[in-house]
Amino acid sequence: VTVTIYGDLRSGNCYKIHLLAGLLGLEHRWVAVDILAGETRREAFLAKNRNGKLPLLELEDGRCLAESNAILNYLGEASPLIPGDRFLRAEMLAWQFFEQYSHEPYIAVARFINKFLGLPETRRAEFDSKQEGGHRALAVMEHRLARASWLVGEAPTLADISLYAYTHVAHEGGFVLDPYPGILAWLGRIEALPGFSPMPE
Amino acid sequence: VTVTIYGDLRSGNCYKIHLLAGLLGLEHRWVAVDILAGETRREAFLAKNRNGKLPLLELEDGRCLAESNAILNYLGEASPLIPGDRFLRAEMLAWQFFEQYSHEPYIAVARFINKFLGLPETRRAEFDSKQEGGHRALAVMEHRLARASWLVGEAPTLADISLYAYTHVAHEGGFVLDPYPGILAWLGRIEALPGFSPMPE
Repeated sequence: VTVTIYGDLRSGNCYKIHLLAGLLGLEHRWVAVDILAGETRREAFLAKNRNGKLPLLELEDGRCLAESNAILNYLGEASPLIPGDRFLRAEMLAWQFFEQYSHEPYIAVARFINKFLGLPETRRAEFDSKQEGGHRALAVMEHRLARASWLVGEAPTLADISLYAYTHVAHEGGFVLDPYPGILAWLGRIEALPGFSPMPE
Repeated sequence: VTVTIYGDLRSGNCYKIHLLAGLLGLEHRWVAVDILAGETRREAFLAKNRNGKLPLLELEDGRCLAESNAILNYLGEASPLIPGDRFLRAEMLAWQFFEQYSHEPYIAVARFINKFLGLPETRRAEFDSKQEGGHRALAVMEHRLARASWLVGEAPTLADISLYAYTHVAHEGGFVLDPYPGILAWLGRIEALPGFSPMPE
């Protein structure tokens, strides 16, 4: 008996949970849901998450929790990936909100249009419009990672997991990372963590 | 000596902090920053928040914290507005991430274009494109609030503060709330809380 995670590993938001589970050695059941086939819009799924989004965590008693970063905070509770210090914990949350507002809507959407839709002409303008915001987000990360090993404090936290998810595949959205040496070194540090599991091809 | 909050009260994200401070009776210094005049893009501000966004919390020792919902979590620590229960606390965060990803980008942006830019023809298509997503977010809230008094558990939490901010001015973005009686009743419950302070006109 264990928690169930509904996810689609092509999605960075879902991969975050897979990555955390590996790092913490969390027992769990993974149920693959196909976003592209519309499975998240069906009534059986909407009954679990009215917002129709992945990933979704289901506890043994049937209670469900949505939003990738909230799931990370739930599963990571009392682990070393959540700082004990009040200010550092708030900084960790700040990076997670930054990820959902200033990073994912540019980098994940550009990647989706390019990698999963094949960059059709009808979405070209939207793809192009995502580049500036994506680079703005990467520059904010670089500002920190040029002078620190991790996004918060001096050890990896949930913030690093949240931002690793789409940053390490940003090239699939057209973002060349060469101008961001701090980010590149940080990606390597995350990939060297014990228990790290890569996003499946 | 107290914390400083940099904000622009026309912004719902900034108003969240004002609302929390009133509900908890938090001593603070409020520094008005004019977003529309470009003050958040100046170097003096960028040195405090590289992402150039409001609100921003500055502690007495000069450390700064960005992201409205992270600031709420920091200032609300150990208050009744953050549930003690692990699952309810995660649900609260889920609603806050929902707010930043599925609610604010539609409702706040439509409101900005309409109320602060005067709905110019050049932004009309963008304004129109925000309506569907905004109503989708309101429907998710209504699904909960038709059967519960508060977004999480049985008492007000930071989730209610986060979502009140732009929901109560959604009409300024063209969203008529009449089809959402659960939301309308909930707005009234928030406005009846001791220490409630309205968004200034």
